[in-house]
Amino acid sequence: MRHDPSPYPERLGRLRQGMAGKDALLVVHEKNIRYLTGFTGSDGALLAGADWVVLLVDGRYVTQARTEAAGIELFEVRNRVDGIVTVAEGWAVEAIGFESPSLCVEEYLRLQERLPTVALRPLYEELRLLRAVKSEEEIARIRKAAGIGAEALAAVQGMIRPGVREREIAIELEYRMRLAGAERAAFETIVAAGANAALPHATPGSRKIAEGDCVTIDCGAVWDGYCSDETCTYIVGQASDRQKEVYGLVREAHDRTIRAIRAGISCGAVDRVARGFLEESGLGSRFSHGTGHGVGLDVHEAPRLAAGREEILCAGMVVTIEPGVYLPGLWGVRIEDTVVVTEEGCEILTRTSKELTIL
Amino acid sequence: MRHDPSPYPERLGRLRQGMAGKDALLVVHEKNIRYLTGFTGSDGALLAGADWVVLLVDGRYVTQARTEAAGIELFEVRNRVDGIVTVAEGWAVEAIGFESPSLCVEEYLRLQERLPTVALRPLYEELRLLRAVKSEEEIARIRKAAGIGAEALAAVQGMIRPGVREREIAIELEYRMRLAGAERAAFETIVAAGANAALPHATPGSRKIAEGDCVTIDCGAVWDGYCSDETCTYIVGQASDRQKEVYGLVREAHDRTIRAIRAGISCGAVDRVARGFLEESGLGSRFSHGTGHGVGLDVHEAPRLAAGREEILCAGMVVTIEPGVYLPGLWGVRIEDTVVVTEEGCEILTRTSKELTIL
Repeated sequence: MRHDPSPYPERLGRLRQGMAGKDALLVVHEKNIRYLTGFTGSDGALLAGADWVVLLVDGRYVTQARTEAAGIELFEVRNRVDGIVTVAEGWAVEAIGFESPSLCVEEYLRLQERLPTVALRPLYEELRLLRAVKSEEEIARIRKAAGIGAEALAAVQGMIRPGVREREIAIELEYRMRLAGAERAAFETIVAAGANAALPHATPGSRKIAEGDCVTIDCGAVWDGYCSDETCTYIVGQASDRQKEVYGLVREAHDRTIRAIRAGISCGAVDRVARGFLEESGLGSRFSHGTGHGVGLDVHEAPRLAAGREEILCAGMVVTIEPGVYLPGLWGVRIEDTVVVTEEGCEILTRTSKELTIL
Repeated sequence: MRHDPSPYPERLGRLRQGMAGKDALLVVHEKNIRYLTGFTGSDGALLAGADWVVLLVDGRYVTQARTEAAGIELFEVRNRVDGIVTVAEGWAVEAIGFESPSLCVEEYLRLQERLPTVALRPLYEELRLLRAVKSEEEIARIRKAAGIGAEALAAVQGMIRPGVREREIAIELEYRMRLAGAERAAFETIVAAGANAALPHATPGSRKIAEGDCVTIDCGAVWDGYCSDETCTYIVGQASDRQKEVYGLVREAHDRTIRAIRAGISCGAVDRVARGFLEESGLGSRFSHGTGHGVGLDVHEAPRLAAGREEILCAGMVVTIEPGVYLPGLWGVRIEDTVVVTEEGCEILTRTSKELTIL
């Protein structure tokens, strides 16, 4: 039994900031609905005015919503657009702000047609950071998820040897995360050996690990809705000098970036630390993705730590730091931790050692 | 090694039907991109003209796309909208048809702004059935997935006994599907006991199975991208007369519906068979969802078998039949098979017995 006071009124309050009398906000992103109400179903919509809020769900979810979003008015719908129209008309809404990255054009055009006098206002920047700063309770859940992930990683380390297939390790790792209490894997676990480790988003396949392979494992658990995200790259048998060198450089990029993190630095500046170091090392063109991303109810959420991003990190944001170097056709190295930003620096939530480990 | 001739030219040909000289089609739905090119990454866009086609991917996916979508022109992008604009301008495109249920409003508004002279045409009905009729090769994959699911269901049947937690069964079932070759579970396995079985989309929790519980297990595997979907409801220990009666009625609704399926019948008429029977039995209001849905690269895809749907079933469509009765606070029964529609009737791909099983 959880004894925290309900976090939902404060969150709805933040959502409503600056809202005028006849305005409403439409929330359709599943994780935003969960964040604002506690409802964990995969389909629904939330419509909120300055002093009212209605959760729209279809027949499959009525019983569940009644329990999870207790205290919030429920409206059962057959069709989401019809429901939104009914509620908006009922409250004589004049303008609806909505999440433009989450609402699809099909529903948008139908809402335009059905509510011709209502202004539909796309919101992007306004809601993007809604969930970015985590509460102590949220950080505790991510920490717990990270602990489960690290435990499972440790448990499968013994499987990382010649002859074992990538997918066998991925299956075992996810099984162990779930036995340890994870709701599920936060994303499809990556186990990428040899040339597959040169694909940042490889899918674990039937490739057998061979002597001298880099093996990249990127995994995360979900605990009470919250994700973790961690990547280790191991080397099997004998590491070549070039592998050791590249590992050392990625590790240095990772460590320097983590040392640079603190409340007040911009996301682009964080990316610059990792990217600048790898560029100086002649590997800039081999680092083909951003340095990191926010982690929470979604494993990828705001903010993005990438070139040119101007958002400022705040205490309580939880982000990944994951520089990588990929040599197509050969191998790759990625090292990733999930950290919580503090005023003075950051706390690393993913606790697996990032020392070069030769198995 | 697969020796089928590439299915992609025929599929792209269907996509392009009726396309004029300066028209283009924009595909952003991940499974549609896979269907049309073979690229399995989770982010990308496909832009196709009458005689050209370009796959847009970001840096993470370049190597993978080069292998999976061999022969298709690749364009590396940092930002999807920027890439679409560049390609559309390069081909002097005058109109772009796009998947309105998949494109988000945010990208749509940016495309409108960046391509002011290009007509953006929402497509919904036109593409909805693109993947609905399956080839023999696709059906073989779904059959294989269904076999893996049924094998895993059989393997965990012994766990369905008092004292075992729902999630323990779900974890074991998914583990066994993957050990048997499934890429992953097609969706989060549902194991719902007792009052949880009255929630059509329950999440497996720490509830322990008790004597007299209905236990609903809804699961599916993915094989080479293709999903299966099957639901069994078991009764533990002693079944009450009412449980036996409701099980029999849901079973009868399921069987009658399967007997009604054949090429040429409308989706609404199929739904009517199940719903009509349950209404006559006084349980119509307890059947709170549609009768079924298409299954393929997505576990839920077109067509929908629900009230009033006018689409006509064609030979080669693969759909679920899944009537259910839910008694809130008490228990529920759902019985589901995945079938392939034929000219004369249908073939059931999910082979677990749907006889009342008391464990």
